[in-house]
Amino acid sequence: MLHEKLREEVLEANLEIVRRGLVLYTFGNASGIDRESGEVVIKPSGVPFEKLKPEHMVVVALDGRIVEGELKPSSDLDTHLELYRAFAKVGGVVHTHSTHAVAWAQSGREIPCFGTTHADYFHGPVPVTDPLDHADMSGDYELNVGKAIVRTFEDRDPMERPGILVRDHGPFVWGPTATKAAMNAVLLEEIARMAALTVSLNPEAVAIGRELLNRHFYRKHGSRATYGQG
Amino acid sequence: MLHEKLREEVLEANLEIVRRGLVLYTFGNASGIDRESGEVVIKPSGVPFEKLKPEHMVVVALDGRIVEGELKPSSDLDTHLELYRAFAKVGGVVHTHSTHAVAWAQSGREIPCFGTTHADYFHGPVPVTDPLDHADMSGDYELNVGKAIVRTFEDRDPMERPGILVRDHGPFVWGPTATKAAMNAVLLEEIARMAALTVSLNPEAVAIGRELLNRHFYRKHGSRATYGQG
Amino acid sequence: MLHEKLREEVLEANLEIVRRGLVLYTFGNASGIDRESGEVVIKPSGVPFEKLKPEHMVVVALDGRIVEGELKPSSDLDTHLELYRAFAKVGGVVHTHSTHAVAWAQSGREIPCFGTTHADYFHGPVPVTDPLDHADMSGDYELNVGKAIVRTFEDRDPMERPGILVRDHGPFVWGPTATKAAMNAVLLEEIARMAALTVSLNPEAVAIGRELLNRHFYRKHGSRATYGQG
Amino acid sequence: MLHEKLREEVLEANLEIVRRGLVLYTFGNASGIDRESGEVVIKPSGVPFEKLKPEHMVVVALDGRIVEGELKPSSDLDTHLELYRAFAKVGGVVHTHSTHAVAWAQSGREIPCFGTTHADYFHGPVPVTDPLDHADMSGDYELNVGKAIVRTFEDRDPMERPGILVRDHGPFVWGPTATKAAMNAVLLEEIARMAALTVSLNPEAVAIGRELLNRHFYRKHGSRATYGQG
Repeated sequence: MLHEKLREEVLEANLEIVRRGLVLYTFGNASGIDRESGEVVIKPSGVPFEKLKPEHMVVVALDGRIVEGELKPSSDLDTHLELYRAFAKVGGVVHTHSTHAVAWAQSGREIPCFGTTHADYFHGPVPVTDPLDHADMSGDYELNVGKAIVRTFEDRDPMERPGILVRDHGPFVWGPTATKAAMNAVLLEEIARMAALTVSLNPEAVAIGRELLNRHFYRKHGSRATYGQG
Repeated sequence: MLHEKLREEVLEANLEIVRRGLVLYTFGNASGIDRESGEVVIKPSGVPFEKLKPEHMVVVALDGRIVEGELKPSSDLDTHLELYRAFAKVGGVVHTHSTHAVAWAQSGREIPCFGTTHADYFHGPVPVTDPLDHADMSGDYELNVGKAIVRTFEDRDPMERPGILVRDHGPFVWGPTATKAAMNAVLLEEIARMAALTVSLNPEAVAIGRELLNRHFYRKHGSRATYGQG
Repeated sequence: MLHEKLREEVLEANLEIVRRGLVLYTFGNASGIDRESGEVVIKPSGVPFEKLKPEHMVVVALDGRIVEGELKPSSDLDTHLELYRAFAKVGGVVHTHSTHAVAWAQSGREIPCFGTTHADYFHGPVPVTDPLDHADMSGDYELNVGKAIVRTFEDRDPMERPGILVRDHGPFVWGPTATKAAMNAVLLEEIARMAALTVSLNPEAVAIGRELLNRHFYRKHGSRATYGQG
Repeated sequence: MLHEKLREEVLEANLEIVRRGLVLYTFGNASGIDRESGEVVIKPSGVPFEKLKPEHMVVVALDGRIVEGELKPSSDLDTHLELYRAFAKVGGVVHTHSTHAVAWAQSGREIPCFGTTHADYFHGPVPVTDPLDHADMSGDYELNVGKAIVRTFEDRDPMERPGILVRDHGPFVWGPTATKAAMNAVLLEEIARMAALTVSLNPEAVAIGRELLNRHFYRKHGSRATYGQG
C-alpha cells in the first residue's frame, strides 16, 4: 500500500477536525501530499468518520488520476489539487464547514486581525474569495473554487495566511503538513468566533497595527521564531 | 410484536436527537412509517429517553387508531400523522425544540439560504408557518399544526425542503426514513445557528443565487447526485 | 439522621444543576422542605459539589434555627426560607448563576414568553425583581432578596410561574419538589437562551398571545393536563 | 528537585485551564511563586498540556535567571515576573486566550460590573490596558506587557481585582496561589460571557452600584467574609 505513513497522518487529520467539533456528519475533508512522488492522499467521499481506516484513503496524482484506492475520493478533490499545484510549500489541505468561519463566509466579510490570537497564526486578515460566477458554476465547479482561492492569493504568501473563506461556502485551510492544516482549521474557527464576538461588542473595532501583527506572527513563525522548544 | 425493525430505527432516531443536543428532557419525538401497512411507530409521551426501549414504541394507524402499545403516544402524534397523510414520500418525522431553530421560529422569520451548508440539504429557505388562529387553537390543536405545515407546502416539494418552523413553536423535520429525518433535524439546527451568526455579522446578508443553490443541492440529491460512494 | 430521603433528593438536585452546566464551582444551591415537620434540607456553604454527601446537608427550621448538621448552611439560606414561608405549595428551591438567565437579570428585563417552549413551563413572562435599595442591602440582605421575590409575586401564582430573576443577580427557581425545582432551573436557562437569540434575530419580537400560552401551559399542568403517561 | 509541591500545584493549574475549555493547544500558561526563595515555577514553552509533568516545569529567579529546568520557560515569562515583582501578595499568575475575555480585550472595552457574579470576585470593572506603543513593542515586549498591566493598577489593589485584559491580546489573571489564579481565570471568562450577553440584550445596561458591589465582594473576601465553612 502506497504512502502508509501519510495515510495515517491524513486519517488522523480527518479525525482531529471531528474531535474538535468542526465537522457534522461527513462535512469535512483533509488531505496530504507526498511532494516527492507528487501524489495526494485524501479522504473518500461521504464515508462516516468513525469507520475511516488508513486503507480507505484514496491516492491521487496531481492531475486527478486515481493511483490507488477502491473508493471515490472526496467530492472536493479538485479544489485540494488546485491548491497543491499552486502553492508549492503546502503539504496538507483541510476543508470544513465549521460554524463561525462559515458565518463569516456567508456574511461576505474577511476576518480582520483584531488581536494577537489571530496574529499568532495569520499574518493579516483572513481573506474571502469573490463570489463564483456563472462560468465557475456551470464548468468544473470544484476546480473553479480552487482557482478562486488561488486568485485571491495572487499577491499574498499562502504560508503566512494559511487559509481562506470561500464566499457563501466555508473555509479551506492549509499548512506544511496535514497535521498542521488541521490545527490551522481549528485555530481559524476560534479566531472567527472571537472576531464575531468582538464586532458584537464593538461594531467599530479596528484591526491591530502592523507592528503588533509582526511581533506576534514572527514570534511563532520564520527564522527568528522564539516560541516553543525548537 | 409488530414492526420490530422499524421500532428499533425509531428508537435510535429518538436517541440520536438527544445525543446531538437537540433535546432537553422529553422535548422531542421521532416516528417512522411502514408504508405497506400504513402504520406509524412513534415514541410514547413524556417517557425519559434513557428508559426508552423498542417495546415502548406505540404503533398507530394513519387515522389515529392505536394498533399496538400499552403507553400513550407522543402528544404531537396528530401532527406526525397529518404529515404522513399529506406527504406520500415521507418515511420519518422528527420534532424538536432545538435552540436556534426555535429562536428563528420565535422571531417569525424563515431561514434564508445563506450558503452551501444550507443548500446541500434544503433547496431554498426553511419556511415558517403562519401563526395559528383561534379556530386552530380551540379545535384539534396538534392536527391543526399539521395542517398549517401542509398548507405552507402547497406549492413546494417536501422532499426538497425536509423541514419547517412552526411559528412561535419549533421545527418539524422529515425525510425518507426516521434515520434521515433525525439527521435533517441536526442539520437544520446547525443551519439555523450559522444563519443567526450570519445576520449578526451582516444584517444585510442576502440569500445565495439559484445557480449555487442548485449546484449544491443536486450534488447530493436526485438522479444526478455525485456525492458519496453511490 | 433526619429526613434521609429528602437529603438524597436535595443532594441529587444540587448535582443535577452541576451536570447540566448551570453551575461553576460552588455557585448554586438547592433545598427541599418537609412540610409536615416544617424543616428545610439545604446544601452547606462553599463545599465543592463533587464532595457533597447526604450527611453534609443541613437541616434548618423555617425560622432559621439549625436542627441538624455540622456545617454552615448555604449563604442564601434566608432567601430559600422566605420563599418556603410565603409560597405554601413550594417543595423545593434552586438558585443558580446560569449564564443566560443572569444576562437577562443583569439587563434588567423580564423574559417575554416568545414561544411554546416557554409556555410549556412558565405561564407568562419570567419576572424580574425591582433593584434592591439601601435598606434592603444594609439590613438582612439574603432575607430581603427573598422579600423582593415575594413582593413581585403578590398578584401572581408562584406555581404557574416557578421562577424569577433577581435584578442584577440571577435566577431563583422552585417547584413542588427539589427535583422539579432543579428541572425548572434547567428549563429557565434554556428559555433565557432561546429568548436572547430571538431578540437578536428580531428586536421587535413580541410575546405570544394568551390563547397559545394557555393551550401549552395547561397541556402539561393542572387538572386537564394531557401530557405524559398520566 | 526544587519546589516539588509547587511544581505539582502549577501543573494542576495549567491542566485546570485546559479542562475548563479556556485553552486551545498550548495557548495558556500558569505559574506560581515561592515567596520565601523568590523563585517562580512556570510551564515550559509550547509543550502539549497532555504531556506535561511536574519535572518539566521551569524554576526561575525573579530576575529571570533560570534556576532549574531543561526546557525553555513560557514565552510570557517576563510578564509573569513583572507581576510577581510589582504585586507582593500575588502567589500565582495565569494567562489564557479564553474566548470571551479576548473578545472584550479586542473590543478595547473594560468589562463593567453588571451583577453579583462579577462582584463576588472582582471589586469593580475588569480593566483593560492602554494599547502598547512603538517603544513597548520594539523593546522587551513581554516585560513591557507586564509594565502596562502594573501601570493600570497604579491606583488599584490587585488583590481586589485579580485580573486584567491586555488590549488586543487577552487576560492575565492572578491570585494568592496558582490554584486560585486558575479559578479566577475561569471566573473571568464566565463574567466576560455574561457581560457580552448583557450588552447584547441591553446596550444601555449600567454597572451595579457601590453598595451591592461591596455587599457581594466582602461576603466572600476580607476579614468580614461569611461565605464558606470559614
